Amino acid sequence: MGDTRAEFGDWLKARAQQVESVLDELLPEPATLPPHLHEAMRYAVLGSGKRIRAALVYAAGEASLTPGISASAQEIALDHAAAAVELIHAYSLVHDDLPCMDDDDLRRGKPTVHVQYDEATAMLAGDALQPLAFEVLSQMPIAPALTVQATVLLARAAGSQGMVGGQAIDCASVGRSLTREQLQQMHVMKTGAMLEASVLLGGIVAGASSTVRAGLETYAQAVGLAFQVADDILDVTADTATLGKTAGKDEASNKPTYVSLLGLGDARSLSLELRDTAHTALRPLGTASGRLAELADFIVGRDR
Amino acid sequence: MGDTRAEFGDWLKARAQQVESVLDELLPEPATLPPHLHEAMRYAVLGSGKRIRAALVYAAGEASLTPGISASAQEIALDHAAAAVELIHAYSLVHDDLPCMDDDDLRRGKPTVHVQYDEATAMLAGDALQPLAFEVLSQMPIAPALTVQATVLLARAAGSQGMVGGQAIDCASVGRSLTREQLQQMHVMKTGAMLEASVLLGGIVAGASSTVRAGLETYAQAVGLAFQVADDILDVTADTATLGKTAGKDEASNKPTYVSLLGLGDARSLSLELRDTAHTALRPLGTASGRLAELADFIVGRDR
Repeated sequence: MGDTRAEFGDWLKARAQQVESVLDELLPEPATLPPHLHEAMRYAVLGSGKRIRAALVYAAGEASLTPGISASAQEIALDHAAAAVELIHAYSLVHDDLPCMDDDDLRRGKPTVHVQYDEATAMLAGDALQPLAFEVLSQMPIAPALTVQATVLLARAAGSQGMVGGQAIDCASVGRSLTREQLQQMHVMKTGAMLEASVLLGGIVAGASSTVRAGLETYAQAVGLAFQVADDILDVTADTATLGKTAGKDEASNKPTYVSLLGLGDARSLSLELRDTAHTALRPLGTASGRLAELADFIVGRDR
Repeated sequence: MGDTRAEFGDWLKARAQQVESVLDELLPEPATLPPHLHEAMRYAVLGSGKRIRAALVYAAGEASLTPGISASAQEIALDHAAAAVELIHAYSLVHDDLPCMDDDDLRRGKPTVHVQYDEATAMLAGDALQPLAFEVLSQMPIAPALTVQATVLLARAAGSQGMVGGQAIDCASVGRSLTREQLQQMHVMKTGAMLEASVLLGGIVAGASSTVRAGLETYAQAVGLAFQVADDILDVTADTATLGKTAGKDEASNKPTYVSLLGLGDARSLSLELRDTAHTALRPLGTASGRLAELADFIVGRDR
């Protein structure tokens, strides 16, 4: 689970490497029939990405460690939960980038999947990453009742009242002005739901008590929203090379954002308020929640 | 679970109505945010379809009934398993019909989802039906260990080495000639995997013994393949009005089929052989497997 004294940057890098190697292991070999599909799935998932969702799983697991559960079983289960959220996230990016959605050619500095392969392969690769996430989650070596809880949580976060629902509202809102409440509702679903699920999965897997779960929930909601506010800020302040994706895309496509709605200064203030809410929610969890606190700082302060 | 003395046609109709009402209950209300997504999901799933996969779940459950498991819990669990396979099937049809795939305008006699709504909504509706299937399956009121087994089974059948993998091979095979072995491999994955999973899910949910599961597996493999052979035969012998989808589509798009490979006569013989294999596999299961036997006959003899 990483040395708690390590610098945050090193810890985060180690967690990214950890989930990368778990994903590499869990994804079918590229030669498996049909090879072009498995190549595209591996291309979509491996090799890059900040792995913030995986880091949230690991950090929440660290904050919730329960004596009495085998440490090695817990570590394998956290690896599977971290891989599952990254698989869902990766599939959503592949589909979001398709021409019928955002029509983006560049992602994490590489050609998007439909540019590298073709549209049909990109759609099918996304379609296949999703059940793989549920398979991987079902293979956690923990009490089956906890696995079932985790599956329901992931399914809801990924579904029509979570991530996909937010994406549908986002698509429908292009060129329209939204109220702050509507914009927030969209982001709570589109980005927040999976970030929140990542935190709660770490807690479930590690056998978190209901007090700890309540703290994690408040933390996760604040961080989920802060992530999107920071993203909107970056879209106007960073350049394409730094972002690894097309900067200024939201403004060009006339999408409502926190910056277009509140202005840059108030958007920055909002992200700092959300960070403080996240920190306060972690207080009852004590020092074990240190990585979660650092992740909140990182999400608000990141430059890409 | 239906009166075993009812005529097969009435039994099948009753099971289709049963799963329809379960799906209607489990799908979010059309007014739920975002309404256009939920309307499209309901449009994709409700109102039509033969519900063969659901019928296989119910029939396999009937064949595997285990004393000692609460009959009402078992019935609810079979309803959820039947709904889950129909949700996966419905999502796959929505995505298969998209312009970047088969580009079909007509499905079950109605405009396809992307024609009725738009491409982005169709893709997202499919993306959201998939996690709903896993959520619904996770809510079966049976031992969590069985639910986890069922989830792994469904995830594999729906994934890159099952249904989606078969679809990817199908896309890549347009205009190419395949050997009978390659064609069979494609169909075993594309159609067979989910039909097989439907049968096995019914068995798992009803607590089938390993002997019963082995019989179900052989039955399911034969029926899965027979279904596709019958489909290829229908594509050349039925008309568009009867099929409710565009007839002659395979030939027009130069797709390899059992008919193009074996000729109509040998394709018919193959489907009858597979029916016999299915019947033989059911012998050790006794009279409780009567509906499965009738389903094999129906799948081979259907006219749409």
